[in-house]
Amino acid sequence: MAAWGQRLAGVRGVLLDISGVLFDGAEGSGVPIAGSVEAVARLKRSRLKVRFCTNESQKSLGDLVELLQQLGFDISEGEVTAPAPATCLILKERGLRPYLLISDGIRSEFDQIDTSNPNCVVIADAGESFSYQNMNKAFQVLMELENPVLISLGKGRYYKETSGLMLDVGAYVKALEYACGIEAEVVGKPSPEYFKSALQEMGLEAHQAQ
Amino acid sequence: MAAWGQRLAGVRGVLLDISGVLFDGAEGSGVPIAGSVEAVARLKRSRLKVRFCTNESQKSLGDLVELLQQLGFDISEGEVTAPAPATCLILKERGLRPYLLISDGIRSEFDQIDTSNPNCVVIADAGESFSYQNMNKAFQVLMELENPVLISLGKGRYYKETSGLMLDVGAYVKALEYACGIEAEVVGKPSPEYFKSALQEMGLEAHQAQ
Repeated sequence: MAAWGQRLAGVRGVLLDISGVLFDGAEGSGVPIAGSVEAVARLKRSRLKVRFCTNESQKSLGDLVELLQQLGFDISEGEVTAPAPATCLILKERGLRPYLLISDGIRSEFDQIDTSNPNCVVIADAGESFSYQNMNKAFQVLMELENPVLISLGKGRYYKETSGLMLDVGAYVKALEYACGIEAEVVGKPSPEYFKSALQEMGLEAHQAQ
Repeated sequence: MAAWGQRLAGVRGVLLDISGVLFDGAEGSGVPIAGSVEAVARLKRSRLKVRFCTNESQKSLGDLVELLQQLGFDISEGEVTAPAPATCLILKERGLRPYLLISDGIRSEFDQIDTSNPNCVVIADAGESFSYQNMNKAFQVLMELENPVLISLGKGRYYKETSGLMLDVGAYVKALEYACGIEAEVVGKPSPEYFKSALQEMGLEAHQAQ
């Protein structure tokens, strides 16, 4: 306990994952992991700053937060770092017009993005939208570019739903990387930039957070 | 020319690719590549042994040869080394019962194979059958095995159809390899065993063939 006390001495904030840590997902719903609702409530009552950092890329931020609230969590949109808003910033900064290989559930996040005459591909956890036709379209867009840019919202191998293990976006990223001979840019964990942006939003340095 | 003559001095046979060499495919059909029908005919009139070696894994051997004959080629089933029959031999030898992630066009090749209670996955160029649902099923089968076996019919990145470039089986192999942390066994080119089996069927050694 002494070691823990020492280790936590300089800690001023906590960054929490969501899927698989606060709850296990199921088709359009989910189940809180035992003790997690109370743990979030206790952290928020403590002196620590709390922020949530997710790679969720199948649901919009609004839908995700709504689900968490329904499950009993005290969480608002402003407390969550999610890859889709971070990706939109990058697209605007670099003048990129994506072909979106994403699920319908997250499409609204890209409403303000120009997708005409694509000069990059954005890939997220698209679930059933990972059809051969959609994958092949993304492949063809990349192969026609002089400098192919593939932006991936996370690079997870798989995730757990109550019904079992599910292939995650990382598998499909690998498919396109191999076919096109390129490497994707990852927006999301474990990218250091992504953690840094979450810390910035908390106003903390890395050594001040757990 | 002298160098060529010297190089070909010991050559007794020729191994020819099919897709992209003899013809370019199109949806259910194809177009012969200029000069290829006559080239095959001349080779077959020569003193050289001729055999065809393909990674075609979307059509059955019967359908492929029928198409080639329609396009004007003098080719019979017995002259072609194809990955599906080679895979069936491996499955039988090793007592493997595959989950088949393949196109309907090649399913008949596996009619004699026990697919109950799968203990491996066989992946071929499945085209539209590369749905999320089918990929996820293959992934789940592999993750439930103590020693996951993934057999891939070729590992091509993409191929050309008259309508454009198409993602090939290799991309989807990479997806499963990454998700499961495994490496596939490739039946087909460029596997040395595959070339050797084609040469055996010609009764030649590697140095005797081009």
